[in-house]
Amino acid sequence: MPGLSKRITTLNAGGSDGWDLFYKAKRMIAEGIAVTELTIGEHDIRTDPAILEAMHAAAMDGHTGYSLIPGTPALRDRIAARVTERTGVPTTRDNVLVTPGGQAALFAAHMGVCDPGDTALFIDPHYATYPGTLRAAGAVPHAVATRPERAFLPDPEDVAAAARATGAVSLLINTPNNPTGAIYPRATLEGLARVAEAEDFWLISDEVYDTQIWEGRHLSPRALPGMAARTLVLGSMSKSHAMTGSRIGWIVGPESAIARFHDLSVNTTYGVPGYIQDAALFALEQGSALEACVAEPFRRRRALAQEILARQNAVGLIPSGGAMYLFLDIRSTGLSGEGFANALLDHHHIAVMPGESFGATAAGFVRVAMTIPDERFAEALHSLCRFAEGVARAA
Amino acid sequence: MPGLSKRITTLNAGGSDGWDLFYKAKRMIAEGIAVTELTIGEHDIRTDPAILEAMHAAAMDGHTGYSLIPGTPALRDRIAARVTERTGVPTTRDNVLVTPGGQAALFAAHMGVCDPGDTALFIDPHYATYPGTLRAAGAVPHAVATRPERAFLPDPEDVAAAARATGAVSLLINTPNNPTGAIYPRATLEGLARVAEAEDFWLISDEVYDTQIWEGRHLSPRALPGMAARTLVLGSMSKSHAMTGSRIGWIVGPESAIARFHDLSVNTTYGVPGYIQDAALFALEQGSALEACVAEPFRRRRALAQEILARQNAVGLIPSGGAMYLFLDIRSTGLSGEGFANALLDHHHIAVMPGESFGATAAGFVRVAMTIPDERFAEALHSLCRFAEGVARAA
Repeated sequence: MPGLSKRITTLNAGGSDGWDLFYKAKRMIAEGIAVTELTIGEHDIRTDPAILEAMHAAAMDGHTGYSLIPGTPALRDRIAARVTERTGVPTTRDNVLVTPGGQAALFAAHMGVCDPGDTALFIDPHYATYPGTLRAAGAVPHAVATRPERAFLPDPEDVAAAARATGAVSLLINTPNNPTGAIYPRATLEGLARVAEAEDFWLISDEVYDTQIWEGRHLSPRALPGMAARTLVLGSMSKSHAMTGSRIGWIVGPESAIARFHDLSVNTTYGVPGYIQDAALFALEQGSALEACVAEPFRRRRALAQEILARQNAVGLIPSGGAMYLFLDIRSTGLSGEGFANALLDHHHIAVMPGESFGATAAGFVRVAMTIPDERFAEALHSLCRFAEGVARAA
Repeated sequence: MPGLSKRITTLNAGGSDGWDLFYKAKRMIAEGIAVTELTIGEHDIRTDPAILEAMHAAAMDGHTGYSLIPGTPALRDRIAARVTERTGVPTTRDNVLVTPGGQAALFAAHMGVCDPGDTALFIDPHYATYPGTLRAAGAVPHAVATRPERAFLPDPEDVAAAARATGAVSLLINTPNNPTGAIYPRATLEGLARVAEAEDFWLISDEVYDTQIWEGRHLSPRALPGMAARTLVLGSMSKSHAMTGSRIGWIVGPESAIARFHDLSVNTTYGVPGYIQDAALFALEQGSALEACVAEPFRRRRALAQEILARQNAVGLIPSGGAMYLFLDIRSTGLSGEGFANALLDHHHIAVMPGESFGATAAGFVRVAMTIPDERFAEALHSLCRFAEGVARAA
């Protein structure tokens, strides 16, 4: 066999894609072990049948041929209207490109702003695929570290220093944040916007959790003065509408950039199934009531978790306001996130993600997805806390 | 706005993506003009309702969450079994990666074998997106010209010379061919295989028309001795099952390559909707009867076209055996393909693709998609011939 590209063989720089514990849990489940699965960000509900009926109606009505590459006009209009409503930034269909999922939007955004060898900044901790996605786009990923004592929020000074040192062409942020749950405050976003302008780079803002807000208020940096011209917002139906498997998302950005992203789609994906676009349109037309309904279980479980965590001292919860995860500080146990997660899986059959899967700065943390029914969730969290207390005492 | 990547702004080297005439026809239709549309390779039937019902059943049954990234085991097994049946090459699920469409497979294949700056060969004439796709993957596309008098078949000697001159890492071929309809004969494929081995490059074989065979027999080059280790076959449900809009395709290749393509999918698409995979599985389980049924109208119209073309001298049909197009030689008119197609659209409201959209060697040809009902198709072809005769006489 001839060689494969360096790009494809070095996507996972460390040899692991960060999902080792998830695969281990899958194997245990396949062996018949009753594992409580709190690793992946997937709802315990399925896509609403009404959305699926809308999809079926569209398919049976003949929307099964090639769809317009940048998305159907109706869906692009609806996404644009939603963005306008939520952010106040006038947005039209020409600012919107529909993609086959948020991951495809993330990849396309970096393909569009980075040439091979360009540096692309991202914040550590980060969603698991970020560095690999930047590498896939030919960019050199450069992590900007954060600190647990500042709730893992990025410091604009650190970003400015990294941008100056590397000549970075972009900064990828994520608010509400996966894995930490942090909602970036206005001051942080304003600071990052100033740096983006001073250093003339793109801000790529992953906002796929923007309907999961438990405290505070989500602010899209595209709404800050001057930022619509240098911000690409990534959105998706996955988390907001429990449509993870339908693979539909979007990029919102300047018209002239979106026109070029259209060219990229012609050559990479050739569009998104029309009937899925019609299903997404139907889902968005239900308005925020459906979104609130999809988010509700996580809101409820977060309140449960706060109660449980308040009654013990071994496990800390960093300040957070959104997303479907708890990011737990288990440093009192003396274990790494990986050590803790593996021990918890081995001894208690509870699967959580090691902080290290999300970057070096998250060592000593674990991410818990709030994605099982309340009672079992509370029970698992109790077990996790008791386990941490035991290890901490013995340490 | 900061700059976009050179990559995304130079995808269409000539400023056009080759679809100008198609867009012009769309605009005329939007203005209410009755245009006979013979440009795009899309069936005049829609996806079989039984396939859509299978999709709906899978979705309602809850297959709406994240699917396994390389594809469901059941679909990968079925594709592998189909490949084994058709080619005799033992193929398992580990040789198969499911992608969101044939275009995504084409892009991924080149991402996987080309690093930025590597030369990727392709045959001219070619499917419209080939050069842009190779550029999107960071490769330098290098066309190997063919000659109309040899039915546009690639000459292995020319490929060898191009490979030696450029150090190419891959050669992209397409059989049955779009736009020419040629089925590559065994001797051509054996010649190309020898060159691929001698020059140690990948053969990327686009076989999305492998169910549309009117004369002769389709041979997959992966079935030639030693070639399974250096061939990536691209497949799709689009043409074989009239599922163009469902965006589902695949790459078949060596196990160790497919494992790396899995990593690429994690970072570019994150898989394909599970219910679409279930629909594809259902469709493939119907066997070749359904495929023959989808192909039948094109077989019928090709016979019609042969009759019509035999009765005139202005328009030539190059020898071909497959795919849903006619590739017509209109050089007797003295017009370019673009000139002919534009005049035909302007004066007779018949839209066909200029040969130039498929590469420099196809100048003086036009591609006619056999995608409208027989009677209207015959009528349009008559008009085209009469128009060509008129121009040729006046020339």
